[in-house]
Amino acid sequence: MEKQYDTPLHKGERIDDLLTQNLHIIQSPEVFSFSMDAVLLGRFASVPARGRVLDLCTGNGVIPLLLSTRTKAKIEGVEIQERLADMAERSITMNGLQEQITIHHMDLKHFHEIAGHGMYDAVTVNPPYTPLTGSDIKANPHEAIARHEIHCTLEDVVQACSRLVKQGGKVSMVHRPHRLADILTLMRQYRIEPKRIRFVHPRAGMEANMVLVEGLRDGKPEMRVLPPLIVYNEQGEYCSEIMTIYYGQPGEEH
Amino acid sequence: MEKQYDTPLHKGERIDDLLTQNLHIIQSPEVFSFSMDAVLLGRFASVPARGRVLDLCTGNGVIPLLLSTRTKAKIEGVEIQERLADMAERSITMNGLQEQITIHHMDLKHFHEIAGHGMYDAVTVNPPYTPLTGSDIKANPHEAIARHEIHCTLEDVVQACSRLVKQGGKVSMVHRPHRLADILTLMRQYRIEPKRIRFVHPRAGMEANMVLVEGLRDGKPEMRVLPPLIVYNEQGEYCSEIMTIYYGQPGEEH
Repeated sequence: MEKQYDTPLHKGERIDDLLTQNLHIIQSPEVFSFSMDAVLLGRFASVPARGRVLDLCTGNGVIPLLLSTRTKAKIEGVEIQERLADMAERSITMNGLQEQITIHHMDLKHFHEIAGHGMYDAVTVNPPYTPLTGSDIKANPHEAIARHEIHCTLEDVVQACSRLVKQGGKVSMVHRPHRLADILTLMRQYRIEPKRIRFVHPRAGMEANMVLVEGLRDGKPEMRVLPPLIVYNEQGEYCSEIMTIYYGQPGEEH
Repeated sequence: MEKQYDTPLHKGERIDDLLTQNLHIIQSPEVFSFSMDAVLLGRFASVPARGRVLDLCTGNGVIPLLLSTRTKAKIEGVEIQERLADMAERSITMNGLQEQITIHHMDLKHFHEIAGHGMYDAVTVNPPYTPLTGSDIKANPHEAIARHEIHCTLEDVVQACSRLVKQGGKVSMVHRPHRLADILTLMRQYRIEPKRIRFVHPRAGMEANMVLVEGLRDGKPEMRVLPPLIVYNEQGEYCSEIMTIYYGQPGEEH
């Protein structure tokens, strides 16, 4: 049964089902649509039951929306693109979550100037993955900003997380495995000690194409490498863990 | 059919089958026996067809023996414990590999003083895993030296690899995943860029308990995370890849 919303959609936008607790999200294939990366980070990240959670590079707000099902904490999102911050705000209103989620249309490099240092219990981020080379920018500027390090490098992101999270707070990130050495060395450099890491492989015999990392601000050095998350089984269907993440129950009808 | 050797064994020693190309190795449960870690590193490491290969912390020489089946390169091993270096030498003689393999009874921290800098095409190492805390040293001093950072820290090992390998040469290591951030940051610090990494999980749903890492001296930053290596299947039997590594063919009778 489709819910009916009176939220005005802008040109090219549509409402997609977030597949969890009847949440819906405004997306635009031309501007920004969330990917599996965000869904997996929304499940992987440790979040406190209460307190304050921050999502950087929040895009259309997919991670705050997903996290709202797991915590009573106040959740804030930071997004540099006005068009996406606006989509995120309309999605939050559409889901009636204005009390819990706030979106800031800001550059994460300056967010501490208004938010202060060390104010968040947990920070999540699904940053742009690709360093800027000048040659391979996609034609679509919204997508380019979301995917390439145009407005912020990985170092900017890690530095912002380090500034904004409390001592003893958690920072969770999804990224590409080919940046793993960069991620872990930058986390160390900015005093976010990597504690939990999980690799995502499309199939059991394939290289990882995604990595989930969680670090602890000022944590002790010692980390765990979780079981691999395999997306598709040998029959080309989602593995049961992916089904559970997406649909709540393995193989449950949606 | 057992081969008969006239190699004199010392007290407590025995000859074990290396399960590949009819190689045998002298071991001693009281002093040192190789583990799966060494076997997996011996298969994982990239070795040149010819040239010079070095194995640090060589123990009873298991990795040089295994590598001798994969390359015509000259292989050298460095071992700080005289008792183990002697076992390694006798194993090499027993297998008739004196022309290919040489063992140095030395401290790896000083090996560059006789070997020079940047002379090896590839360096392998299965170092002690456990930082020295003073509390958990095993009673057996030989095993303690092999397992704990008594004579060398992880930083000493990475620094030695960096000194001894050529520019563009490969450094391969097996270690415990809980040290992953240490390993990758130290490799970066000593200009060995991590390029290939593989995690070993006892079972598909369990955390990794071993990690294989290969870096390139002065390589460009970008790494691959290989498919997970799962040791046991759901029936508690070795997975086919482990069977292939140990026995040459999946499920082949030994």
